[in-house]
Amino acid sequence: MNRIPVAIVGANGYSGEELCALLARHPGVRVTAVSSRQHAGRPAREILPRLAGSGDFDRIVFIDSSVESLLAVEAEVFFLALPHGVSTAFAGPLCEAGRRVVDLSADFRLRDARVYREFYGEDHPSPGLLASAVYGLPELHREAIRPARLVGSAGCYPTSILLPLVPLLRRKLIDPSSIIVSSASGVSGAGRKAEPGLLFSECNESLRAYGLPKHRHLSEIEQELSLAAGCPVAITFAPHLAPMNRGIHTTIFATPPDGGDGLLPALEAAYAGEPFVRVSDRLPDTKHVTGTNFCDVSVRHDPRTGRAILLSAVDNLVKGAAGQAVQNFNLMAGLEETAGLL
Amino acid sequence: MNRIPVAIVGANGYSGEELCALLARHPGVRVTAVSSRQHAGRPAREILPRLAGSGDFDRIVFIDSSVESLLAVEAEVFFLALPHGVSTAFAGPLCEAGRRVVDLSADFRLRDARVYREFYGEDHPSPGLLASAVYGLPELHREAIRPARLVGSAGCYPTSILLPLVPLLRRKLIDPSSIIVSSASGVSGAGRKAEPGLLFSECNESLRAYGLPKHRHLSEIEQELSLAAGCPVAITFAPHLAPMNRGIHTTIFATPPDGGDGLLPALEAAYAGEPFVRVSDRLPDTKHVTGTNFCDVSVRHDPRTGRAILLSAVDNLVKGAAGQAVQNFNLMAGLEETAGLL
Amino acid sequence: MNRIPVAIVGANGYSGEELCALLARHPGVRVTAVSSRQHAGRPAREILPRLAGSGDFDRIVFIDSSVESLLAVEAEVFFLALPHGVSTAFAGPLCEAGRRVVDLSADFRLRDARVYREFYGEDHPSPGLLASAVYGLPELHREAIRPARLVGSAGCYPTSILLPLVPLLRRKLIDPSSIIVSSASGVSGAGRKAEPGLLFSECNESLRAYGLPKHRHLSEIEQELSLAAGCPVAITFAPHLAPMNRGIHTTIFATPPDGGDGLLPALEAAYAGEPFVRVSDRLPDTKHVTGTNFCDVSVRHDPRTGRAILLSAVDNLVKGAAGQAVQNFNLMAGLEETAGLL
Amino acid sequence: MNRIPVAIVGANGYSGEELCALLARHPGVRVTAVSSRQHAGRPAREILPRLAGSGDFDRIVFIDSSVESLLAVEAEVFFLALPHGVSTAFAGPLCEAGRRVVDLSADFRLRDARVYREFYGEDHPSPGLLASAVYGLPELHREAIRPARLVGSAGCYPTSILLPLVPLLRRKLIDPSSIIVSSASGVSGAGRKAEPGLLFSECNESLRAYGLPKHRHLSEIEQELSLAAGCPVAITFAPHLAPMNRGIHTTIFATPPDGGDGLLPALEAAYAGEPFVRVSDRLPDTKHVTGTNFCDVSVRHDPRTGRAILLSAVDNLVKGAAGQAVQNFNLMAGLEETAGLL
Repeated sequence: MNRIPVAIVGANGYSGEELCALLARHPGVRVTAVSSRQHAGRPAREILPRLAGSGDFDRIVFIDSSVESLLAVEAEVFFLALPHGVSTAFAGPLCEAGRRVVDLSADFRLRDARVYREFYGEDHPSPGLLASAVYGLPELHREAIRPARLVGSAGCYPTSILLPLVPLLRRKLIDPSSIIVSSASGVSGAGRKAEPGLLFSECNESLRAYGLPKHRHLSEIEQELSLAAGCPVAITFAPHLAPMNRGIHTTIFATPPDGGDGLLPALEAAYAGEPFVRVSDRLPDTKHVTGTNFCDVSVRHDPRTGRAILLSAVDNLVKGAAGQAVQNFNLMAGLEETAGLL
Repeated sequence: MNRIPVAIVGANGYSGEELCALLARHPGVRVTAVSSRQHAGRPAREILPRLAGSGDFDRIVFIDSSVESLLAVEAEVFFLALPHGVSTAFAGPLCEAGRRVVDLSADFRLRDARVYREFYGEDHPSPGLLASAVYGLPELHREAIRPARLVGSAGCYPTSILLPLVPLLRRKLIDPSSIIVSSASGVSGAGRKAEPGLLFSECNESLRAYGLPKHRHLSEIEQELSLAAGCPVAITFAPHLAPMNRGIHTTIFATPPDGGDGLLPALEAAYAGEPFVRVSDRLPDTKHVTGTNFCDVSVRHDPRTGRAILLSAVDNLVKGAAGQAVQNFNLMAGLEETAGLL
Repeated sequence: MNRIPVAIVGANGYSGEELCALLARHPGVRVTAVSSRQHAGRPAREILPRLAGSGDFDRIVFIDSSVESLLAVEAEVFFLALPHGVSTAFAGPLCEAGRRVVDLSADFRLRDARVYREFYGEDHPSPGLLASAVYGLPELHREAIRPARLVGSAGCYPTSILLPLVPLLRRKLIDPSSIIVSSASGVSGAGRKAEPGLLFSECNESLRAYGLPKHRHLSEIEQELSLAAGCPVAITFAPHLAPMNRGIHTTIFATPPDGGDGLLPALEAAYAGEPFVRVSDRLPDTKHVTGTNFCDVSVRHDPRTGRAILLSAVDNLVKGAAGQAVQNFNLMAGLEETAGLL
Repeated sequence: MNRIPVAIVGANGYSGEELCALLARHPGVRVTAVSSRQHAGRPAREILPRLAGSGDFDRIVFIDSSVESLLAVEAEVFFLALPHGVSTAFAGPLCEAGRRVVDLSADFRLRDARVYREFYGEDHPSPGLLASAVYGLPELHREAIRPARLVGSAGCYPTSILLPLVPLLRRKLIDPSSIIVSSASGVSGAGRKAEPGLLFSECNESLRAYGLPKHRHLSEIEQELSLAAGCPVAITFAPHLAPMNRGIHTTIFATPPDGGDGLLPALEAAYAGEPFVRVSDRLPDTKHVTGTNFCDVSVRHDPRTGRAILLSAVDNLVKGAAGQAVQNFNLMAGLEETAGLL
């Protein structure tokens, strides 16, 4: 098979490591370079011992995460697994040089630079590039992703919130002003940062909310919800940290104007042909999706209050990050959308 | 000191074991009997190895959980740590014989036998006793608890939901029709039942909702919320199971008609003198309350949607069960309310 | 590609589920039947929701685990993922009918029926079959596995103990009378049994030894160690249960008569060409092997006491069970040994 | 009651926080000062939110950890909960000023400054003070602790290893040259250090050995074992990190020259009157000791190899640190040894 050469920029975080693991066994790609500012010059197998002995990773030596080094790499597509605010410096030159980019950070997920400024507190460094990027949630924007030069791969909370809500908003089955979301994430969602609050003994046997009331990811969530509803949508969102490595569980409360009976059928119809969305009557459990690219979705109706409860679960590092990036890549490269993911 | 003789009925579950631990070091009580249907005749130290060497527990041999055995026990107060539906058979005869009872089950928490029937699917076996029982949440019903013969000690989810909401409903600071609750509980909340779904490998690295949309505890929650609001209140409630031993974290969404500024001050004022409710600007974390009888409470306001987010944390086995029972007992016995709990 | 038809008998336990997951994405097999006594007639996707949407599993309906049902199945190889003592009833008739069998239980791992009797307390039901079976640890018995009709796939503790020790015993680099082993296993190693001791709240925040001093797996461990040493070997073995889903960590203490310098080179030489044994100076960590078929091995020497400390880590459900079974199958079927495993 | 004024130096680590919690409810003490270099000037309730509302802690404001500040404090006994190597600077001036000191670090646990140099790689800064300190394991050195001015409170691994071994070595019931120890510790044992290796996602679902082959705590362990055996003892020690907050489980392998029958009786006899050592036939489990000052001890004999397996469990932060310090303090202050600990 003709394998497509790809490079990974920033392989040291949890999403980057997961991306390496997925690409190592992807039948349609060849990983030609992996970069890390911190570990340049060291064998990948030392930094990512989990991957030693897997695919190309025994031969790979980390290169420096500089634009120059990367432009010299033989790769058609670059995956950027970098912290927020850092991707732009790479995406610009790479795109200009004719390479294609899948960005896992939040840098290219917003259409409107003013919204970026409101939520991130600074001007977007490259508003032109922002405008040309495609929001990388294949179930919503498949056709736009295929030819895209730059895809801002959708984040973990947004994926878990948008997949249940968008089909229902499109069909006017829920009141857009009634949406309230409570999510819980595994600790890997916070990244590999040596902060006291992320120590084992601070997170184990602990459950806590954080980032209230205006989490940054609200910007991309509301952008896509508004698009689906055809009107501006603002929601209340409460994220929590739960004592587990992986997984996001999302519980959405919303009022269905016409009652709850049509919700499950509408979701089933919307996702009937989708390979990675499993709609069912069963309540989602993160343990059924961790290590997979699936998003499980279900719904309950509470006739006592007239509210619906939508539920979903994803692996924050797979469908919420690295798997989503690979799914986007498969579309861009004209491969089977599920390649390397089932 | 003159120690009050007490007995524990059903010491084998998690709440019962925690109750034994609390009473073992309570300076005002003497545990004269511990009963267990399953373990009658065996030394307590064998069944509860954690308690071996602590206080009275080296000398105690489990007696049978029969009414006859219990009536023969020298004890002024009986703690019933029994499964739902079993307490009535003990509470009746004990009360008739002039003993006082703190029941940790849900059997005596409702005022209205019809509500019991609606939520539990059967007639209450002793509606007269039900009518005479007091709802055992000291922060709400302290004066009624003191002289009570039978107290239905408040449950874990209800405690975490009522303490933040009741003062605000009483002062009309939130719209009672707007209340939505998302809670997460540690696995001990499900009891020591050998069910496949509660195995370590099924709960660890797992987060899932359950009991939707009409959890039984809604009945006592709505009873007390309605009392506080002065009108019938129905809420939406989504409980979740989180991979930790102990702790309940509750996130409440509600609309404050007059804005969010008065909420924190109102909570601070309501609980200024309460020894076990800690109101603060800090977001609650279950790890700060596990092993304690505290309920931590905080609030955030989201001006974008006009909603308030109330948050609380308790240890489901202490303030949510055994500690609450001891707090109720202290009131009934005329002891310092914090005795054995700080 | 010409996919080999295989069947899985007993898919309901943890090893069986992992086996289904591995075979679902194995490029060289076609799963034609999955059986379960308990769930016959139900769709696999209901019982194993994690696998819904993966490969053949959306179409598979569990059949009954009876010999008759299984003999009617189109399958060249049968994987038996059954409790101890149950496999024989299936392995006999299947082998007689010309099918080949990979057994994941302990039923066919011993060469000597008397040892079976000593450790399992009863006569082996089919000593003739026992004598013809091959011990399924490919790194030790690759050539015997290829043509075997019946393979008793090696267990989790044995794999983690034999891989570090066998090459050193063969080369007389450690004193066989000095071997002491301390292992810790994740809770899935105990199986999906609804026993109180395996509940989340009993295992989380708990670490304990069990099965002392004569764990059943000692029989197969000592059989293979004796074979390697050329003399009878008896060891001391202390298994522990650790609060994690997966993973076995093994620490072996032994005296190297000629000092410790030659140990790491000997291990590196022994496993230079092995795809699934990673020898390194790095101390093994279960998190680097979970979800993989690797066994990580390292060694330290303590000049103060003259003892060596050998360390290893495997995923008990992969290299310790389902992955090992697939590796054995690959050899038997003449496929690439790593097929479906990297 | 006449409460003894005490101060805590360095309350920010896990041992310091546990010490604050224990002293907050100790009936015989009054906490007059708590110091922290990092948090001087801030209310204790902000830094240790778990303790808000408990005893003296609502009124306490952290003072600076300087010798001058501390000498100005009204306190008869100072608890030093500081990192290794820092205690000496405080212990010297405090002792000279006539105050008494319980040090929780490893700085004053060795009798021989040369051993300190060998294991810690530098000269002890105050060898005279070292010589005058008492090793703070009450079960071994009770009478020397009572009048001591400076106690080096025994560490967590040493406590779990010494309590099972010392009585048997004293009675020549095990061969001192045969001792091999494998221990596993919860992550709080590594301290509240913001290191990548201690992040939740690095420790959860992970088990690994570390510090091989010459862990620093070997020095105090071998010092006390040699004292008990009456001859120099060197042991092999393999510590492991397990995914739990608290608890140390220790498994000791040793050869009993006269067979295993006398071991359990000898342990029972040795600890018959001890309030905090529970000898039993039951295999220890960390969950039965966490949150307590107990050390559980048991033993098994393996007639196949002639070796004994000794097992123990402690809470690393209680009997392994803060509880032990309080037990030492109780002896020094002439209080009931169990005060504040049962």
